[in-house]
Amino acid sequence: MKQEKAFILKGDLCWSTSVSELATMDDGYLVVEDGIIAGVFKQIPECYQALPLIDTDNALIMPGMMDLHVHGSQYQYRGLGMDMELLDWLNTYAFPEEKKFADTEYARHAYSLFVDDMKQSATTRAVIFASIHYPAAKVLMDLIEESGLIAYVGKVNMDRNSPDYYVEETARSLADTETWIRETIHQYKHVFPILTPRFTPTCSDELMEGLGALQKKYDLPVQSHLSENPSECDWVKELCPWSSCYGETYLRPGLIGPGIKSVMAHCVYSDEKEMELLGENEVLIVHCPQSNENVASGIAPIRKFLDRGLMVGMGSDVAGGATLSMLRSIQDALAVSKLRWRIIDQEDKPLTIDEAFYLATEGGGRFFGKVGSFKKGYEMDALVIPDRHLLGPRDYTVRERLERVIYSSEPILEGMHMKFVKGVNILDS
Amino acid sequence: MKQEKAFILKGDLCWSTSVSELATMDDGYLVVEDGIIAGVFKQIPECYQALPLIDTDNALIMPGMMDLHVHGSQYQYRGLGMDMELLDWLNTYAFPEEKKFADTEYARHAYSLFVDDMKQSATTRAVIFASIHYPAAKVLMDLIEESGLIAYVGKVNMDRNSPDYYVEETARSLADTETWIRETIHQYKHVFPILTPRFTPTCSDELMEGLGALQKKYDLPVQSHLSENPSECDWVKELCPWSSCYGETYLRPGLIGPGIKSVMAHCVYSDEKEMELLGENEVLIVHCPQSNENVASGIAPIRKFLDRGLMVGMGSDVAGGATLSMLRSIQDALAVSKLRWRIIDQEDKPLTIDEAFYLATEGGGRFFGKVGSFKKGYEMDALVIPDRHLLGPRDYTVRERLERVIYSSEPILEGMHMKFVKGVNILDS
Repeated sequence: MKQEKAFILKGDLCWSTSVSELATMDDGYLVVEDGIIAGVFKQIPECYQALPLIDTDNALIMPGMMDLHVHGSQYQYRGLGMDMELLDWLNTYAFPEEKKFADTEYARHAYSLFVDDMKQSATTRAVIFASIHYPAAKVLMDLIEESGLIAYVGKVNMDRNSPDYYVEETARSLADTETWIRETIHQYKHVFPILTPRFTPTCSDELMEGLGALQKKYDLPVQSHLSENPSECDWVKELCPWSSCYGETYLRPGLIGPGIKSVMAHCVYSDEKEMELLGENEVLIVHCPQSNENVASGIAPIRKFLDRGLMVGMGSDVAGGATLSMLRSIQDALAVSKLRWRIIDQEDKPLTIDEAFYLATEGGGRFFGKVGSFKKGYEMDALVIPDRHLLGPRDYTVRERLERVIYSSEPILEGMHMKFVKGVNILDS
Repeated sequence: MKQEKAFILKGDLCWSTSVSELATMDDGYLVVEDGIIAGVFKQIPECYQALPLIDTDNALIMPGMMDLHVHGSQYQYRGLGMDMELLDWLNTYAFPEEKKFADTEYARHAYSLFVDDMKQSATTRAVIFASIHYPAAKVLMDLIEESGLIAYVGKVNMDRNSPDYYVEETARSLADTETWIRETIHQYKHVFPILTPRFTPTCSDELMEGLGALQKKYDLPVQSHLSENPSECDWVKELCPWSSCYGETYLRPGLIGPGIKSVMAHCVYSDEKEMELLGENEVLIVHCPQSNENVASGIAPIRKFLDRGLMVGMGSDVAGGATLSMLRSIQDALAVSKLRWRIIDQEDKPLTIDEAFYLATEGGGRFFGKVGSFKKGYEMDALVIPDRHLLGPRDYTVRERLERVIYSSEPILEGMHMKFVKGVNILDS
């Protein structure tokens, strides 16, 4: 991988200009300087005429996608065991698999396959759950750094309501976490640690408070699960009778809060009170529609979140989701939003393609800074997708081609030879 | 394509033994004689020892899939225009595209791409809507016959509530249909005509009765749409105030009935009365879960149908569905059944993999005779899927591999070099 200081990418561009608006430009020029987008132009401006030009021969060019919730340690059983609800599913499938990452060699093999797949996918940046094992988490971080992708990786914490073979002692969990933070926080160019209490049911108050202290000490971001499944929500109410909503169980120990960068996956059952809390504390909600179908959780009220101006991104949630494809996530977000409108609440009008595309790109990109669009000043993550083989005997607009690529999901990416992360083509080895 | 009179296929087999039970056998032998399955064996029986053996090197071998509802004339805009409900969607996207098939050369180009894609897919047999143009329907039938696939193809009838540019005059519609029947009914080895009133809203009583007469005269099967969308159902009630349910609008003119082979797509809103009618008249219900999401129809009560012993198969419903992949249809059937259980009716427990697999294979196969399983005496349709690249650092049972293939959808089929229809490998050109 080598980085041109500045260059121009020519092709058929599409990107979000706002939550609800998609822009397209055929035969457009995307100018990049030092990994940052200088602008999108219909003609090359005079001042850029001398820059090297990469002509993609009318490939579709769109921002890289942001997978804000994915379990690297569950990748090996993606597409298996989809016959249970969340809590049984965790005990039957997730925990036995994650336990294997105690063996660092197993972890290296399994995480290599995971990272290779993500490198070929539409994702350029991700927020990842590892397992409870911090040596394995470091292996994953090494592999991501090598791949050219950008990610936050979390060593998982859990010290209660977990099987004997996959649980930590509280003090040890915190000590391991701090060791891991120190060893990784300044270690990589593209990979960063993120605090990762699994979810309230498996984290004691003491553990949560300890993690809150680490958050403060190292100013770290936080990821977890929130309001995914009705039984889980009931359980949290029992475990934390003092809380007025599930979200508050992260707020009190200082794992979400103003100035704390946080992502919370799912929010299928977030009520008015929780929505308020999510807004006030600038939590980025991660919509994982396929997972919410596969483990029978339900359909998140994304329209309500958008109407209230909450921050929303998307996640594959492998292995609750069966694929790393964020194009498929867009498709699934559209599909379930239509069912929600039809079946649950006709006030929640279905998401548009423009909105779902935004969620998977700029919506999640905010977690990484100015990322996920082709606006001037944004970091340049881009997919170059040759899609000619998807077309037929008629004309297609750039917008229609994008729509078709979304509904075709991953196979179309096999012809992709350019995928830029911060201006670097990571597929050019 | 050449047909071995008898042969043995060796590999890792999976097939349905009943609606709710899937059998698997690793290193199994599937014995085929004259296109018919002689049996599945763990060791080759003495009497078959001399037969030629095809060793698939532990590929996954499963029955071919049955796509019981797909619009060949909509294939060109699959994955486009997914932003409307059924009735607007038809007027905005479907009818303008279907109109193009008046041009037989356009039809040849468009149908070629459709048939090529289906040939590479998991589908071995299909029930297909063409357009209103009978010369184009014949082109499609020619292409299917060449491909080695087996299909029923329908010239569509519609004489009311349709745009000026895409509607038939009643007498002409019936005359064209009879001409087309005569020209095709004994023309092909693998392709057969099927009567195709589009749906009650676009078919006058006179047209329906005329088609009923043709059904009787030529003993033809029938396909149509039923109870897909709430506005459509309301409209049918207005148009046919005499009917006690939508299904009765096909029953009265003799388009469904005892002894009449029929498929009805969707049945999302079939009530008790309609379920009774579907059972009494042995109608094969076609579940099209992806289409029901894409055009915001809802979720069909498949559990209720199975509990009542009704016949159910599956369809891609391209272009309401965006892909011909019947593996994806299985995945979608599972996903929406979980949402139905969670959101609509906790009595309707989610489908199991075994059940959804059955629907896509033997469930739909009944329309073609003894088809869709590896039981003795069944016609041998089979997919040979090399899936090693989907596996990782652990052991996988045949059942788990099937599950992964279903959740991985179509890309895995790129390595498929053997796909048998009635004992003939149609990919061996």
